[in-house]
Amino acid sequence: MTNNIHPLADVKTKNIGSNTNIWQFCVVFAGAKIGANCNISAHVLIEDDVVIGDGVTIKSGVQLWDGVRLEDNVFIGPNVTFSNDLYPHSKVHPSHLLLTTVKVGASIGANATILPGLTIGEGAMVGAGAVVTSSVPVNAVVVGNPAQIVGYTNTTLEKNVKSSPLASDRKPPYSDSTSVSGVNVHRFPLIPDMRGSLTVGEFGQHIPFIPKRYFMVFDVPSKEIRGEHAHRTCHQFLICLRGNCSVLADDGVNRTEVLLDSPDKGLYLPPMVWGVQYKYTQDALLLVFASHNYDAADYIRSYSEFMQLVKS
Amino acid sequence: MTNNIHPLADVKTKNIGSNTNIWQFCVVFAGAKIGANCNISAHVLIEDDVVIGDGVTIKSGVQLWDGVRLEDNVFIGPNVTFSNDLYPHSKVHPSHLLLTTVKVGASIGANATILPGLTIGEGAMVGAGAVVTSSVPVNAVVVGNPAQIVGYTNTTLEKNVKSSPLASDRKPPYSDSTSVSGVNVHRFPLIPDMRGSLTVGEFGQHIPFIPKRYFMVFDVPSKEIRGEHAHRTCHQFLICLRGNCSVLADDGVNRTEVLLDSPDKGLYLPPMVWGVQYKYTQDALLLVFASHNYDAADYIRSYSEFMQLVKS
Amino acid sequence: MTNNIHPLADVKTKNIGSNTNIWQFCVVFAGAKIGANCNISAHVLIEDDVVIGDGVTIKSGVQLWDGVRLEDNVFIGPNVTFSNDLYPHSKVHPSHLLLTTVKVGASIGANATILPGLTIGEGAMVGAGAVVTSSVPVNAVVVGNPAQIVGYTNTTLEKNVKSSPLASDRKPPYSDSTSVSGVNVHRFPLIPDMRGSLTVGEFGQHIPFIPKRYFMVFDVPSKEIRGEHAHRTCHQFLICLRGNCSVLADDGVNRTEVLLDSPDKGLYLPPMVWGVQYKYTQDALLLVFASHNYDAADYIRSYSEFMQLVKS
Amino acid sequence: MTNNIHPLADVKTKNIGSNTNIWQFCVVFAGAKIGANCNISAHVLIEDDVVIGDGVTIKSGVQLWDGVRLEDNVFIGPNVTFSNDLYPHSKVHPSHLLLTTVKVGASIGANATILPGLTIGEGAMVGAGAVVTSSVPVNAVVVGNPAQIVGYTNTTLEKNVKSSPLASDRKPPYSDSTSVSGVNVHRFPLIPDMRGSLTVGEFGQHIPFIPKRYFMVFDVPSKEIRGEHAHRTCHQFLICLRGNCSVLADDGVNRTEVLLDSPDKGLYLPPMVWGVQYKYTQDALLLVFASHNYDAADYIRSYSEFMQLVKS
Amino acid sequence: MTNNIHPLADVKTKNIGSNTNIWQFCVVFAGAKIGANCNISAHVLIEDDVVIGDGVTIKSGVQLWDGVRLEDNVFIGPNVTFSNDLYPHSKVHPSHLLLTTVKVGASIGANATILPGLTIGEGAMVGAGAVVTSSVPVNAVVVGNPAQIVGYTNTTLEKNVKSSPLASDRKPPYSDSTSVSGVNVHRFPLIPDMRGSLTVGEFGQHIPFIPKRYFMVFDVPSKEIRGEHAHRTCHQFLICLRGNCSVLADDGVNRTEVLLDSPDKGLYLPPMVWGVQYKYTQDALLLVFASHNYDAADYIRSYSEFMQLVKS
Amino acid sequence: MTNNIHPLADVKTKNIGSNTNIWQFCVVFAGAKIGANCNISAHVLIEDDVVIGDGVTIKSGVQLWDGVRLEDNVFIGPNVTFSNDLYPHSKVHPSHLLLTTVKVGASIGANATILPGLTIGEGAMVGAGAVVTSSVPVNAVVVGNPAQIVGYTNTTLEKNVKSSPLASDRKPPYSDSTSVSGVNVHRFPLIPDMRGSLTVGEFGQHIPFIPKRYFMVFDVPSKEIRGEHAHRTCHQFLICLRGNCSVLADDGVNRTEVLLDSPDKGLYLPPMVWGVQYKYTQDALLLVFASHNYDAADYIRSYSEFMQLVKS
Repeated sequence: MTNNIHPLADVKTKNIGSNTNIWQFCVVFAGAKIGANCNISAHVLIEDDVVIGDGVTIKSGVQLWDGVRLEDNVFIGPNVTFSNDLYPHSKVHPSHLLLTTVKVGASIGANATILPGLTIGEGAMVGAGAVVTSSVPVNAVVVGNPAQIVGYTNTTLEKNVKSSPLASDRKPPYSDSTSVSGVNVHRFPLIPDMRGSLTVGEFGQHIPFIPKRYFMVFDVPSKEIRGEHAHRTCHQFLICLRGNCSVLADDGVNRTEVLLDSPDKGLYLPPMVWGVQYKYTQDALLLVFASHNYDAADYIRSYSEFMQLVKS
Repeated sequence: MTNNIHPLADVKTKNIGSNTNIWQFCVVFAGAKIGANCNISAHVLIEDDVVIGDGVTIKSGVQLWDGVRLEDNVFIGPNVTFSNDLYPHSKVHPSHLLLTTVKVGASIGANATILPGLTIGEGAMVGAGAVVTSSVPVNAVVVGNPAQIVGYTNTTLEKNVKSSPLASDRKPPYSDSTSVSGVNVHRFPLIPDMRGSLTVGEFGQHIPFIPKRYFMVFDVPSKEIRGEHAHRTCHQFLICLRGNCSVLADDGVNRTEVLLDSPDKGLYLPPMVWGVQYKYTQDALLLVFASHNYDAADYIRSYSEFMQLVKS
Repeated sequence: MTNNIHPLADVKTKNIGSNTNIWQFCVVFAGAKIGANCNISAHVLIEDDVVIGDGVTIKSGVQLWDGVRLEDNVFIGPNVTFSNDLYPHSKVHPSHLLLTTVKVGASIGANATILPGLTIGEGAMVGAGAVVTSSVPVNAVVVGNPAQIVGYTNTTLEKNVKSSPLASDRKPPYSDSTSVSGVNVHRFPLIPDMRGSLTVGEFGQHIPFIPKRYFMVFDVPSKEIRGEHAHRTCHQFLICLRGNCSVLADDGVNRTEVLLDSPDKGLYLPPMVWGVQYKYTQDALLLVFASHNYDAADYIRSYSEFMQLVKS
Repeated sequence: MTNNIHPLADVKTKNIGSNTNIWQFCVVFAGAKIGANCNISAHVLIEDDVVIGDGVTIKSGVQLWDGVRLEDNVFIGPNVTFSNDLYPHSKVHPSHLLLTTVKVGASIGANATILPGLTIGEGAMVGAGAVVTSSVPVNAVVVGNPAQIVGYTNTTLEKNVKSSPLASDRKPPYSDSTSVSGVNVHRFPLIPDMRGSLTVGEFGQHIPFIPKRYFMVFDVPSKEIRGEHAHRTCHQFLICLRGNCSVLADDGVNRTEVLLDSPDKGLYLPPMVWGVQYKYTQDALLLVFASHNYDAADYIRSYSEFMQLVKS
Repeated sequence: MTNNIHPLADVKTKNIGSNTNIWQFCVVFAGAKIGANCNISAHVLIEDDVVIGDGVTIKSGVQLWDGVRLEDNVFIGPNVTFSNDLYPHSKVHPSHLLLTTVKVGASIGANATILPGLTIGEGAMVGAGAVVTSSVPVNAVVVGNPAQIVGYTNTTLEKNVKSSPLASDRKPPYSDSTSVSGVNVHRFPLIPDMRGSLTVGEFGQHIPFIPKRYFMVFDVPSKEIRGEHAHRTCHQFLICLRGNCSVLADDGVNRTEVLLDSPDKGLYLPPMVWGVQYKYTQDALLLVFASHNYDAADYIRSYSEFMQLVKS
Repeated sequence: MTNNIHPLADVKTKNIGSNTNIWQFCVVFAGAKIGANCNISAHVLIEDDVVIGDGVTIKSGVQLWDGVRLEDNVFIGPNVTFSNDLYPHSKVHPSHLLLTTVKVGASIGANATILPGLTIGEGAMVGAGAVVTSSVPVNAVVVGNPAQIVGYTNTTLEKNVKSSPLASDRKPPYSDSTSVSGVNVHRFPLIPDMRGSLTVGEFGQHIPFIPKRYFMVFDVPSKEIRGEHAHRTCHQFLICLRGNCSVLADDGVNRTEVLLDSPDKGLYLPPMVWGVQYKYTQDALLLVFASHNYDAADYIRSYSEFMQLVKS
């Protein structure tokens, strides 16, 4: 075995992958399973019912209690704190432990606190000092106490077309492509006059399909995340009529985030694009045109299924 | 001549139709033209450049200055006051007088004041004590100082479907007909849940056409009147997404007024219906679906042309 | 007959009381009934179905159409305009005329407009230029277009106890009498601290009865007038918990108006006091304690019945 | 005498200037004094204690009660209604009449109502249908019920420098002259950045004097009129820091009105300019720099004194 | 001695109860007092002036500084951080240490921070990641930075009667019992009409006593906790007239929490029920009727005294 | 060497000053540099590229990663967590580490989290549990997640002159000195009347200089800190015209904080006083008069340069 286990550590497990280091004053129980190429800094404690993948980094001051699962390439910052009992009482042992899973490639920042029973999604990023009270979606970035989503990793923020200097030279209707394949930001004419303002769009022309259905979303609590799915065949077109919200679009390769903040601004989401809507203001009203009637089978609700379909 | 001109009146004109009465202490100048079957109450003054149609009633205390035109069947209440100079100054005569026209069948209530240069539309009704500072549309009812439109004559007010006792037994989507031919009030499902509320409609099904175009109207000053036209072939469907507004629909025979006040309520306007939108709240946002692309030739913008087409 | 009818007037009626003057260029129809000691200024017109009491003053430029009734000691200002048809159309005569009654001692200011079918209550005062669109209660003062109640004639405005310089020396609870017999303004302790504010009252002690009932009034449109009755045996105690409203109290001899604008301020209304609540702010919430359970027979809803009971 | 008094009028006074016309069915009492070159239309009534200047026009349906004074070149529109008793009661004569004075060159629009005891200032304009409840300043234009000032006669409205197309080519600080001698609208640099916005001015440079004093005006009721004076030697510089207000500047020859609506916009008023501030929004805060310390003797508070000083 | 002290720990005290375990890499000073049946996880440090009761659990990464007192059955989560100096400076030792006491049965969640000088009440629960800046009441649950009370342990949340499906079949007034003995939620008639809305209740009938006193509570900061006492003989009835607040009722056996959010909803609290009001909205106004006049001796302000009385 | 390195610690560096203690289970790398008189509690880890000054205290559970610099007399509370990579990913090493510097005399409270790349200023105080996401200015006190400035250490809070009991006996204008040399709080006359309120000041009299310049600051985000400089020769006078903000004044010996919350309240800052403005409300508008025109050379922007100038 080519592991480097420091002699000042107290390590009982034999289940450790190659090239894994464990430093001073660590305590590792006999049942723990630890992958290859891991680095476990000083003062870490790992209980029996813990499974750690390959390429994982665990900084000092961390305890992994029974029920913690760390997938490959996870990063756990210093003094990050896990737990496995929502309502702990001394000498009262919960009938079953709550599992905590940190998925492939996720990172948890320094001194963050993770409540029990949650999943930290693939590629997600928990900010330093965050107190995570609900599961973190794939690729999401969360900060604060309680932690809230503030963005997604590796995401382009589309320039607000409204304030673009180039835009002023162009006469709506027009549309701009984004970094995400097939997703376009549309701009419609906005005609204010003394009697009120007016904006107009034509289906099949500026909006690239004939709708079969519309729906409207409103009264959304500001911390709510909606969408989180892709469609197999349905096209969608989104306009935020009052207030504003942000839309994340992800084609499996690139991600972009578009702020919808004006009734003369629309976003086209073709099929096979993963979409998320969030950062709703209190007064936001989102109008969505859909190219097809409702069909539950058209929804892809698992991000990994979506990624598999994209890759195939 | 069969006129009845009271001997205590001072009437110089010879241009008076038959069966017209003029009562005590009236003063009528030599150039005035007065139609048949009129009744002109005591203490009225009529200058030279005045033309009065048939069947007109003028109550006491009214003066008709040079430039006033009253068409057939007009009613002028007691002490109604006309003027012909916007910025009167003693001994300063305006270069040209402003004409005031009261169209066929209009009525002006007691003690109203009419600023110069205005037209009171056919069938319009000016409320008692109103101070009229801009022209009054066809069939409109105006009151206040300054006068504002508060309704249209001979118009049914549709019961608000929301509060209808019958409605509670029905599950949206459904629609109700109105007194105006082809005009229906639609109700859509409204589904609130913890994450926000949702409403949905399907084109070609609940909305009786496939739209080619949508437009949105917003930031409308509350005293503004919009629409005031009919379409020859275009169908429209109106939903007020926030705030509320009222829609007048007129098929040339009946008139109805519908309050749009909820995102799950829509109004269908078929072709050949005269439509007016007004009583916008400050925050109103009106979404309109149209069955055809924009075509200026499809608009009928004159109410009398509309009535001729309806009758033919 | 000692009437003074000017030779330039055209007066047909014989039914005129003594000491009544009618001036130049008046027109009075044969059916009119006019009382004694009246003064009818120049340029007035009076139709047949009009009844005028004694001691009435009518200034110039006024027409009294069929259906107008003026009781004794009424004052009609110059150019005041009556009407007897809500929706006048030329040559369309209403099936029945709407009566207008101006009750004993009421005054109508210069150039006011009175819509048909209304009653101007005893002792009421219509301000100059007002456009009166609903009946005016007993003793009320109305102004504006449309006219709204702004006060009551001969009414003391109670000093706001809050801002009374004397008040600052006194420690609540205490109460102050008003000019109206038995009606008291109460002040309760108001105890603010870091955790919130508190106010307290004791029934049977500071509030002079034990309640059998409470009710709360809220969402009152600001122009609404409530109350307008007295109780035979029931005591009431009013506190405005948020916003504010004004209460008129009238014992048949004196009238007082009290502004309720603080949760630590109450108003005691004993039986046999006529009460009116008005000038509600949009957010006003009025809490009323009552000494008796509801009993329709306890209400005196006619002001003249109330006055008779007071006098007896 | 070269007057033209119509034989159908009942005129008792002998006190009438030359070239004055009085038309049919007028009633003029023996004590009335009427100037030269007046025109008094049909159906007017004039009591004894009335004084009318030269060149006055009075349209039909007007009564001038005891106590009315009309100065030279006044215009009184049709059915304008005066009064001389604030709380009229039949048969109750006020101990003294309230005088109403309409000053030189003022005009009163059709069907306006003037409450007793008021003065309508020189050159003022009362809009048609207005109900005037307080005195009208020199040159003011009032409309509505109750009447409020909406402008001043013969006044240039300065283009809002902010929205001027030329302005965008210029870099502040700069200033623009107005139609009023010496009065300039200044524009200061406005530097917004992420940390807040900043605006700056230098005394003796962009502001054409070194201040000895500043004062701030706020909490002004929106209908309030402030200023109404000129200074003999003091320079002033006005900036509206929040909300907005309008400033009328008058050099005795021209008048201009400037909207102050931004903290980077200032108005320079040199000595011997009559200034009025009005149309305050509820939140307006006006900062004024003055070149001299307070000196009551520096104020000219009478517009006629100001005009005399200007002319001399 | 039957303790299990791991050989890799550095434990100097001899004052340790039986069946207590201390794990690897712990540091325990000579003066520390530790009870029986405790479990002290790896990497814990315990200074001299520390007293720990029986049955206490201390997870890894915790330091107990001089001045910390943990009573029986306390749970201290991993990386929970105590302190004993409010304004620490290197090499500046405070004149006296601030004590921190965690009372019987309290639990402190993972990675929470406890400021010095505070008491964590019996049975209280500090959420993971909370930063506790003031003492925590008995049974309270606190979370956040800074920590605020969000509930009480083992408390039923009463269904909001308003939205109960059963409720719609019943006609108010009626009342529902709760899980707490004698505590009922009442519903009163709510009668809206054009003139405003009205609600009514009768004392001795729907409200189960005749009040001697009322008080009102308002302007309560939203984080405020009020009440925290029981009455020996006084009955109370609570109605929240505007805004809303929550009431915790506790009979010593069960706890329930009721949201008061409508003027037609009331809560009856009999004697010998511990009550707490909290979660006030900014505009909340709470009206309380009491069956007795104020008597300081009627209040039980200590929860342990209340529990003793309940048990006896 | 007189160090006390506990035998249970694993310390590799030789670079440790005298009188420094290192306790059990610490890990110190060979490259670390540690000053004299330090105290390093149990369970601390110190990497190679770390420099620690003299007199530093480090409590248990802290890790000092490569790139951390602690200057003299710094206090690091228990479980305080540093980091050196903003977007950590397992096995991805940043191209360069972000340095974190804690300046002389600063203290970091228990369990605080410090994001990488920041500087904690001299004498600053980070509250327990704070999550520090931007650099902390000299002497500032920060708390919360994310941390915000709530005050400055050793600062007198000036009593609000408005509510001072003494103040009511004095008639403005007057001024009060503060604990900071030459800094005075001024009070100007405030004259409210029905037409609005007015406040006035005279330059060279109540304001102790003649201004050459004014500037106004507004639209400042509430978390923004402005100023942070002293002037060599320029005098300033600050008035907050709407909303409010707080001003810190520091003469190098004393610090005071003044709340500016009224247009009749001003603050005089002489030359050589360090000033900071913060706690701006959203609507705050700060007017500043300056005795000199703008001169970049007059600004001292480094606090240490300021302190040197003060001391010399």
